[in-house]
Amino acid sequence: MLVSEVGEFGLIKLLAEAFGIPYPPSREGRQAGLLVGLGDDAAVAPRPDGPVIWTTDTLVAGVHFLPERSSWQDVGWKALAVNLSDIAAMGGTPHLSLVTLLLPPDFCVEDALDLYRGLHAAAQEYGVTLAGGDIVRAPVFAVTVALSGLALTGALGQSRVLTRSAARPGDVVAVSGTVGDAAGGVRLLQAGSAFETDAERRLRDAQQRPRPRISLGRQAVRAGLRCAIDVSDGLVQDLRHVATASRAGIRVEANRVPTSDALRAVFPGEAAGLALSGGEDYELVLIGPRPAVEGLIDASETPLTEIGEVYAADEPHVAVIDEAGREVPLPRAGWDHLTRP
Amino acid sequence: MLVSEVGEFGLIKLLAEAFGIPYPPSREGRQAGLLVGLGDDAAVAPRPDGPVIWTTDTLVAGVHFLPERSSWQDVGWKALAVNLSDIAAMGGTPHLSLVTLLLPPDFCVEDALDLYRGLHAAAQEYGVTLAGGDIVRAPVFAVTVALSGLALTGALGQSRVLTRSAARPGDVVAVSGTVGDAAGGVRLLQAGSAFETDAERRLRDAQQRPRPRISLGRQAVRAGLRCAIDVSDGLVQDLRHVATASRAGIRVEANRVPTSDALRAVFPGEAAGLALSGGEDYELVLIGPRPAVEGLIDASETPLTEIGEVYAADEPHVAVIDEAGREVPLPRAGWDHLTRP
Repeated sequence: MLVSEVGEFGLIKLLAEAFGIPYPPSREGRQAGLLVGLGDDAAVAPRPDGPVIWTTDTLVAGVHFLPERSSWQDVGWKALAVNLSDIAAMGGTPHLSLVTLLLPPDFCVEDALDLYRGLHAAAQEYGVTLAGGDIVRAPVFAVTVALSGLALTGALGQSRVLTRSAARPGDVVAVSGTVGDAAGGVRLLQAGSAFETDAERRLRDAQQRPRPRISLGRQAVRAGLRCAIDVSDGLVQDLRHVATASRAGIRVEANRVPTSDALRAVFPGEAAGLALSGGEDYELVLIGPRPAVEGLIDASETPLTEIGEVYAADEPHVAVIDEAGREVPLPRAGWDHLTRP
Repeated sequence: MLVSEVGEFGLIKLLAEAFGIPYPPSREGRQAGLLVGLGDDAAVAPRPDGPVIWTTDTLVAGVHFLPERSSWQDVGWKALAVNLSDIAAMGGTPHLSLVTLLLPPDFCVEDALDLYRGLHAAAQEYGVTLAGGDIVRAPVFAVTVALSGLALTGALGQSRVLTRSAARPGDVVAVSGTVGDAAGGVRLLQAGSAFETDAERRLRDAQQRPRPRISLGRQAVRAGLRCAIDVSDGLVQDLRHVATASRAGIRVEANRVPTSDALRAVFPGEAAGLALSGGEDYELVLIGPRPAVEGLIDASETPLTEIGEVYAADEPHVAVIDEAGREVPLPRAGWDHLTRP
């Protein structure tokens, strides 16, 4: 059996089963030695002075970005940003990062410097220390960032993080900013767009310079929320991760999902579809009791839109509902790192 | 300019200069926010409950190992072991690890399970929690492990770690176990050996199943030592890293460098050369005042051999001395990840 046949999540499930690690994550099963284990946006481990959060993400040339269509500064920014977004989705504060570069021998030194300019800019912006890493030769360029963060703690020192398994029936589902822009940006890049309009450039920037929602994640914890995920694989697929971990159903009203003027201008008629299935927005989905979510919407400077609710269900399910109240069939699940051609 | 022209350490130097990070490490220059920064075996950051150590290392198929000559269990073991050795070289205790896999689509699920069997075995043996990671598609197999550890602290809570910059003139240099075996193992693997003798199998195991010296590193800290490095790039090259960071000279007596019976049996006449330039032994070089080193040699169950001393020098230098007291010319520097063909 090949890994492309079982897919990323199938492979993780097989590995977890083989070593007795609870997966997908749930409220009941907790991995030994961890507060939050395999299958959430990040791992959380207890420490006497407060829990540490830990995550890692990789960008591979030709898989996660096209070198001929991206500047190396943007690749550097994004390599850190995608990890920052995982810390944001736990409600944490980023701290230290390690950077691993796989470099082909004919990679240019100036491009490596540009890559670090992007990494450094994101590190400065978000208060991260670049603490070292590893540089190795490889036939393909890849950059792996490992990032640690600190969780908020309660008055008794207990961990207060946002997890995928904390959604409860009756909870409200909200999303920050707009979704689908990054997927629109990918389409334009693949089509060789010259990015002549502001709207097109906005979609490109959403794809290449995502801005993780660190402050919002922390604010959500303080507002009493306990469940979140960042939109990396695609809104519906990411909601499925929450539904699975929380063993619940999630109902989303399609016409409430926020899209940008830019996306609707560049892709008229397709914006709603891109918003549901497109990945890499790095917005936060925040889920909690109505008073907490409404309090957060009022208090937050970041636009937050209510898009649906959690309901009790025997099988995890995400239902997208049209204006007539009918469930719309979903064309595509979202991103799987191993099965996508 | 290509990265293969400047080499791994040249590239790190350029990157550090561009962003104002002290490199190579020294006693004086310390990276903002860190107790030990870029250029040591691992980074060390202060935390209220004691310093954390953080390191990462990558194995790329065809570069760091040959898939047709290594079992996937051995690759998994080694992927964690090389990181454990960096924690050992700081005198720390390993804690959490994140594992990133780059997998070609035609990679077999059973091989991925075998890889994790090796990772899991090393994690169990050394008390590490495998806390998650990332799995992505790539045209080449690679495994990156990021590993955190905890440093020992003094009575006043200060960090007590072993660094490359702490060697002082008059200090004694010792090495654990024997060196050169892993390089002998590589030679046999490259030559397609059938590993029919115990000696040949011992060299292969040294290369494929290294046993990091975690206990010895901690014992060295407790014995009052402050300087160490692990033998990963090759004994002489690793001593050069210490000489550079400590701004000192290091004199090694070639005939005192410990080699195994197996290495001398399989490579008669070449053992001394392999011991000086071969990498991947993952033994510890421990450096400190004579009473501390002698105390450690007496107390440690791990064989430790005195091989030389540190002397005051205007320029960092490593001198290997033969029995007649002459400095021997060194054929090869050791491993550089980018320039080696």
